[in-house]
Amino acid sequence: MAKVLTSRAENYSQWYNDLVIKADLAENSAVRGCMVIKPYGYAIWEKMQRALDDMFKETGHVNAYFPLFIPKSFFSKEAAHVEGFAKECAVVTHYRLKNDPDGKGVIVDPDAKLEEEYIVRPTSETIIWHTYRNWIQSYRDLPILINQWANVVRWEMRTRLFLRTAEFLWQEGHTAHATKEEAIEETETMLKVYATFAEEWMAMPVIQGYKSESERFAGALETLTIEALMQDGKALQSGTSHFLGQNFAKAFDVKFATAEGNEEYVWATSWGVSTRLMGALVMAHSDDNGLVLPPKLAPIQVVIVPIYKKPEELEEISAVVNKIVATLKAKGISVKFDNDDKRKPGWKFAEYELKGVPIRLAVGPRDLKNGTIEVARRDTLTKETMPVDGIEDKLEALLDDIQANIYKKALSFREEMTTKVDDYDEFKRLLDEKGGFFLCHWDGTAETEDLIKTETKATIRCIPIDAPDEEGKCMVTGNPSTKRVVMARSY
Amino acid sequence: MAKVLTSRAENYSQWYNDLVIKADLAENSAVRGCMVIKPYGYAIWEKMQRALDDMFKETGHVNAYFPLFIPKSFFSKEAAHVEGFAKECAVVTHYRLKNDPDGKGVIVDPDAKLEEEYIVRPTSETIIWHTYRNWIQSYRDLPILINQWANVVRWEMRTRLFLRTAEFLWQEGHTAHATKEEAIEETETMLKVYATFAEEWMAMPVIQGYKSESERFAGALETLTIEALMQDGKALQSGTSHFLGQNFAKAFDVKFATAEGNEEYVWATSWGVSTRLMGALVMAHSDDNGLVLPPKLAPIQVVIVPIYKKPEELEEISAVVNKIVATLKAKGISVKFDNDDKRKPGWKFAEYELKGVPIRLAVGPRDLKNGTIEVARRDTLTKETMPVDGIEDKLEALLDDIQANIYKKALSFREEMTTKVDDYDEFKRLLDEKGGFFLCHWDGTAETEDLIKTETKATIRCIPIDAPDEEGKCMVTGNPSTKRVVMARSY
Repeated sequence: MAKVLTSRAENYSQWYNDLVIKADLAENSAVRGCMVIKPYGYAIWEKMQRALDDMFKETGHVNAYFPLFIPKSFFSKEAAHVEGFAKECAVVTHYRLKNDPDGKGVIVDPDAKLEEEYIVRPTSETIIWHTYRNWIQSYRDLPILINQWANVVRWEMRTRLFLRTAEFLWQEGHTAHATKEEAIEETETMLKVYATFAEEWMAMPVIQGYKSESERFAGALETLTIEALMQDGKALQSGTSHFLGQNFAKAFDVKFATAEGNEEYVWATSWGVSTRLMGALVMAHSDDNGLVLPPKLAPIQVVIVPIYKKPEELEEISAVVNKIVATLKAKGISVKFDNDDKRKPGWKFAEYELKGVPIRLAVGPRDLKNGTIEVARRDTLTKETMPVDGIEDKLEALLDDIQANIYKKALSFREEMTTKVDDYDEFKRLLDEKGGFFLCHWDGTAETEDLIKTETKATIRCIPIDAPDEEGKCMVTGNPSTKRVVMARSY
Repeated sequence: MAKVLTSRAENYSQWYNDLVIKADLAENSAVRGCMVIKPYGYAIWEKMQRALDDMFKETGHVNAYFPLFIPKSFFSKEAAHVEGFAKECAVVTHYRLKNDPDGKGVIVDPDAKLEEEYIVRPTSETIIWHTYRNWIQSYRDLPILINQWANVVRWEMRTRLFLRTAEFLWQEGHTAHATKEEAIEETETMLKVYATFAEEWMAMPVIQGYKSESERFAGALETLTIEALMQDGKALQSGTSHFLGQNFAKAFDVKFATAEGNEEYVWATSWGVSTRLMGALVMAHSDDNGLVLPPKLAPIQVVIVPIYKKPEELEEISAVVNKIVATLKAKGISVKFDNDDKRKPGWKFAEYELKGVPIRLAVGPRDLKNGTIEVARRDTLTKETMPVDGIEDKLEALLDDIQANIYKKALSFREEMTTKVDDYDEFKRLLDEKGGFFLCHWDGTAETEDLIKTETKATIRCIPIDAPDEEGKCMVTGNPSTKRVVMARSY
């Protein structure tokens, strides 16, 4: 195998980087902190987009597009928002280059300075609420249920492919409502959409919950999150849905006439997931041999590798394989017959293992004679010989089985790695020795939260929406607590 | 009708602006020259994207994503390219804001100046060819057939919604080939894809041809174009496909080892269409009552308006309509039953006319009794009463019919508006009196081309790929010419 990965045990972080690059998902670009998403990685992202977009539309949302740039003054209008984003903004100050008088390429033309600088959007609440002001007059104009697929820029100092990049791709929903209740319901609905997507498509179990105040989105009254557990025992925030109250409506003066003729500020939500999900997908399931992709998001679900020496053998194999390919395609299964004779079967086996193709079939002359085919599963790395006759139905069922198995495995892992702890010293010990999610009592204060973070680098990932009431004592201060929260170190 | 349009005859340009805004396609934003694409407009763009993307994939292309920013130095590497784009670039110079010490919001932090400025991509040849350098070593790595869906920024001074905006959405294909012939073939293939899309989806006939040297893309050896005719007799360049030769390979030092073991520079193409197509779609077909959308791109293909006074009547109507809706949906037809009782039928009729919905059905109690339904076509503005029984098949056929009719109408118009001219004075007279496409002899020199442009504002739109050989004399200089070129005033 030409492309060897660092093992997870040896260096999980290096394993991740190796895998993202060697499986052709993405690579670093010439632009600081910005990545190139390569075709294979982008094909997975497209599948994610399609599934999410369908779910957004089923829940009544429509897509639109707002400008890439945000006038600097818009930023100052919502105090918490500017505080949260000002330190990591790409700023456009000029609109023209000119030839360097010294003859050395081009320079920024000092005469083309903008009167007001533009910020490359790190998120679009401000430009969108400025726009909504003109769209909303009366309760009849509400709700507005809009989503945008876009690129955004946050000038992160330490970046990692997919997980934290200066530019990333995402979707951002921005909705406007007549009542607080409706906006809260929207916030919850979209969190459920994200959770469903994570579990049913990404095969990744998530905990749904509320962020603590200090972890909220800049400008939100409440932030809901889905938190997933990676194989190294660290949490990864995978999607957030924000109840923004009337903060942005007030900042941009967006009022509406109620049915009763009163004038009120509009209620807002926003919610987003990003290419960070690609990182989550890789880290949740993959192994030391490469990617393990859930079939629903795999660009190639079934790959067929012919084993032959003479051209006549390939011809015979192709006759059988072409029928299988046609039947699988008719079932909507994406299949590739790799008859490229520049590469040997061994190379192909390693390559598709690295790329996480869920099912690999191999057919040689002996199989033809026996009417069988070798079926290899990527998730379990097991092989089985099956009759060619009726193989397509079996493969279809096998894909479902693999999808379910990957989820089950991730769920078992999370259960194993979720620990109830009541003692702060034990918490610290287990955090280092075991990692994972910890269910702990916390006294609800930002001081205690800060202390834990400073001393252990663990944070409150969320207060689960379904956390049962349970009287207890904060593991740090001993002060009373009414439910356990989820703590973990995180990405 | 609340939303009245300026008529085309009165002021075509105003009619266009009115229509784009009143039909909820797009509007100007707070950011100079940047538009907001509203949900209805975006839904049309999504249909365009889907159709084009499918065609790209059928022709062997895959999608990927490259950074939004381009280091300034990359720009200088291809001389013609920088010359073409330097004057309209958004430049990022800083990466942080800070609180204004005077307490007035935020200012750009002077300590956060970039060492090298970044350009917001106006097109991505430079960053992509920089990346390809690492991807291409041998002929086995070729061809690379990549497309990117992205936003780009060109700081245009005079902007118009969709037609010319500072930020716009587009796709840009960037391919790399081992031979000149293969790259030229790719350039031609993609032009044909664009022409097919324009004609079969947008119902817009186009002329395929070569740009003259002075109209070529900055950095291209050859630019192919599709040119469409708008209803005011002006041309609109609707898509371009460029043969870039080895210019970018040389600028970014991208060589490959041939099968024979030699080292050669890689051959390149790029090709793109943008949200400008939205403007073309509006201007090609719409009328003084509003949009006329070809069914294949209409977000709503059939709308059904109930005519009733009492709730019981609506109930009866709904029983019939719901069956029609279900059958149409099963056929893949997008249908809306507008039973909103806050709006009157007259308002709805005007609204859907404005929005260009191809078929409008109206059903009242009398229709129910007769087992009929009123069917109105948007393209011809004609109405017909049809039996409810079997209506779905008829509507399906009618949609095809409307698609074909819109194309036919546009084609007839173009034929009417295409004039062979051999005399320069007559050319000038007809350009003012009639407009449209002119087939003229031209001596092939940039001087003559410039003169025509200066004197008449008309340009050589293209040298059609299927122009027959025809000996003639340049209408300006009398010098020999071997074929007619297409001239027109244009957007």
